[in-house]
Amino acid sequence: MTRVAVIGAGPSGLAMLRAFQSAARKGEAIPEVVCYEKQANWGGLWNYTWRQGVDENGEPVHCSMYRYLWTNGPKEGLEFADYTFEEHFGKQIASYPPRAVMFDYIEGRVKKAGVRPWIRFSNVVRWVQYHPETRDFTVTAHDMVKDSVTTERFDYVVCASGHFSSPNVPEYPGFDTFLGRIVHAHDFRDAREFAGKDVLVVGSSYSAEDIGSQCWKYGAKSVTSCYRSNPMGFKWPDNWEEKPALVRVEGKTAFFKDGSSKDVDAIILCTGYRHYFPFLPDDLRLKTRNRLATADLYKGVVYVHNTKMFYLGMQDQWFTFNMFDAQAWYVRDIIMGRIKVPEDKAVLLADVAEREAREEASDDVKYAIKYQGAYVKELIAETDYPDFDVDGMCKAFFEWKQHKVDNIMAFRDNSYKSLLTGTMAPKHHTPWVDALDDSMETYLRN
Amino acid sequence: MTRVAVIGAGPSGLAMLRAFQSAARKGEAIPEVVCYEKQANWGGLWNYTWRQGVDENGEPVHCSMYRYLWTNGPKEGLEFADYTFEEHFGKQIASYPPRAVMFDYIEGRVKKAGVRPWIRFSNVVRWVQYHPETRDFTVTAHDMVKDSVTTERFDYVVCASGHFSSPNVPEYPGFDTFLGRIVHAHDFRDAREFAGKDVLVVGSSYSAEDIGSQCWKYGAKSVTSCYRSNPMGFKWPDNWEEKPALVRVEGKTAFFKDGSSKDVDAIILCTGYRHYFPFLPDDLRLKTRNRLATADLYKGVVYVHNTKMFYLGMQDQWFTFNMFDAQAWYVRDIIMGRIKVPEDKAVLLADVAEREAREEASDDVKYAIKYQGAYVKELIAETDYPDFDVDGMCKAFFEWKQHKVDNIMAFRDNSYKSLLTGTMAPKHHTPWVDALDDSMETYLRN
Repeated sequence: MTRVAVIGAGPSGLAMLRAFQSAARKGEAIPEVVCYEKQANWGGLWNYTWRQGVDENGEPVHCSMYRYLWTNGPKEGLEFADYTFEEHFGKQIASYPPRAVMFDYIEGRVKKAGVRPWIRFSNVVRWVQYHPETRDFTVTAHDMVKDSVTTERFDYVVCASGHFSSPNVPEYPGFDTFLGRIVHAHDFRDAREFAGKDVLVVGSSYSAEDIGSQCWKYGAKSVTSCYRSNPMGFKWPDNWEEKPALVRVEGKTAFFKDGSSKDVDAIILCTGYRHYFPFLPDDLRLKTRNRLATADLYKGVVYVHNTKMFYLGMQDQWFTFNMFDAQAWYVRDIIMGRIKVPEDKAVLLADVAEREAREEASDDVKYAIKYQGAYVKELIAETDYPDFDVDGMCKAFFEWKQHKVDNIMAFRDNSYKSLLTGTMAPKHHTPWVDALDDSMETYLRN
Repeated sequence: MTRVAVIGAGPSGLAMLRAFQSAARKGEAIPEVVCYEKQANWGGLWNYTWRQGVDENGEPVHCSMYRYLWTNGPKEGLEFADYTFEEHFGKQIASYPPRAVMFDYIEGRVKKAGVRPWIRFSNVVRWVQYHPETRDFTVTAHDMVKDSVTTERFDYVVCASGHFSSPNVPEYPGFDTFLGRIVHAHDFRDAREFAGKDVLVVGSSYSAEDIGSQCWKYGAKSVTSCYRSNPMGFKWPDNWEEKPALVRVEGKTAFFKDGSSKDVDAIILCTGYRHYFPFLPDDLRLKTRNRLATADLYKGVVYVHNTKMFYLGMQDQWFTFNMFDAQAWYVRDIIMGRIKVPEDKAVLLADVAEREAREEASDDVKYAIKYQGAYVKELIAETDYPDFDVDGMCKAFFEWKQHKVDNIMAFRDNSYKSLLTGTMAPKHHTPWVDALDDSMETYLRN
């Protein structure tokens, strides 16, 4: 029997399970699927933990989320085409749900699909090997509950372990003697800890914007953010200042490239994440920057150096859940023999090169959103994943971008129309700046 | 050629290298030794980093030490028998050196030995396998600098990766909504961060005692420590209170088993460490509690289920550096054929059982110290490791214990006589409570 190993039960891995289950429900014979998940529950990044650093098993904590996190883009851009928010909640809900609400939604689809028995929880994949002579893989995993190791054979491996879990942590001169706290966004958990403090946020991307905003919302005395290339440039509150690059720290003082300085109590490194596959040998391990056109992935999913090895969700992301779905359905159809991967490696490499060149053709944000939208359309055109209004979603992203420019501390108070059901989202009952309680119960009270 | 893999270049692994180099210097033919070290430098736990959680490569940080750490036992109890403090520093130094001084001492011996070329730094061991048909091992390691993986064959594997690096982190009710910082001792880095704060230290062993004392010394508003079985029972300062077991937290309030409560800003979990070998399969992986007589190790070093696999320093420790030496010399002599390991597994198991029974015969601290002293004597009697006055060291430990009872915040102001050179240590120029600068330069200014 054909056997497929899926590594990770977060949004990408669950999409893979749902893709196979969807085929099975239509009466088709599917391979045996084994999903290895190192956490005790599914949901990947969305499975919150108060833990930092390493988890209860000594493994690096997967979760990069924090308390009070609301989605930083409208839910209308990430809605599953086969499972809408309205189906899950029995009504339309406001557009920027907190983490617990999103977790519930993600879980709802896979509960309905009944794929939980396919997942081996608390199973850390230690090592994967490809055997050219038998053209198959072995996957070695440590079951942390039983404290024992298994090695099993598979025909295909789908790596869906995410790439926003392993922090990129630069060192600046003086860090080893800084008189305060230094923490990477990955280990940031609760903004209230920084109430009354002067906080320095290093970075100018989504983590910097959102963690800085969280600290501001929950009472930081001041927020300073610093950038290497360009400021975020939003209309910040009075006690938020953007500075050029951090150069060094001394005692409690941070020094910036323009010669200015600021005394701070804490430094939060929003310096990004790295693709990190400690369980993969050289011949299977993807090496890529965080970009829309990843290196070495034909159609963004097939590893060009071994076409029985797949990666899901390794791109930088405007589209998320439904893009993972588009990829998972596509990979499913390759494994089930419905889609053929060219045998000529030059063709695969040319596909990658074309995607890279097209991505690099423009720095414009709208271009990038449309680029990824086109990618999603390209994949879903070849499978039975429900068609949906990708262009409409791009437009929702454009609106969202403008709403952030209009008022960075109020963009989450806007509503958008579902591209799946056509229903307008209700306005949330409380402006984001005043909504300190992030529980699902409170959010759904609309 | 016989090949030996040593995993880890901390005090235990370096002892192994020094043991082989010592034989080579006497003109003997030694095996090829390859030491894998995941950090960029040697020293193991003593190699300080400001990093917490995961390191620059995404691997769990090895270091469990913090700024301003001084040894918590007299240096006269851990002196190398083949390299004295006087040889290294050119004079006798005070008895409780800060971390940087200890690092310099550890490094001095192996610099002199010239074993650095044997070490592959930034090499994370991913997987070890034993092959019964060829009676050898393969070790697979990821070179993080080259970002490439090697697999090599070895006749013996010596695991010297330590067991005070992987934190044991219990969860208490309310932790996921605690309104302050929760950190394990492993990630505690700088006591100054807790100046002016109410700190709760969970635990009653060495970390709790020392981290609580650090916080107190550097200006915590109050220290509360709590125990499951017995209080530490020292004469604490007025703003330090011992409580029975933590039961739960709510908001910023910690509740204890006796019904009392305390509002705290931070919780530091001094709840110990676990033996953690993510690179070892079931047939090679040691499973033991932290105790003087480890499970499954003949003579405390030979893995009873595969006698080509050795472990160093896996015991709970009164003796440290010179015990690792005693073990390393003993293992070296097994590998070099000078010491025979019994072939009958029943004999090996009986050795383990005898050690366990003897450890369990008494709860007395002096008994435990003497027990481990006897173990060190047992090993060094069989090798050419320089003989030294183990009983004298036991007496130094007894004195140290009494000095702590006399004054927990001043025990480090005492001096002891070297059991190697007979020289009395000078009194340190500044009492520990007033010595805020932990630099080597300042410490050596006696």
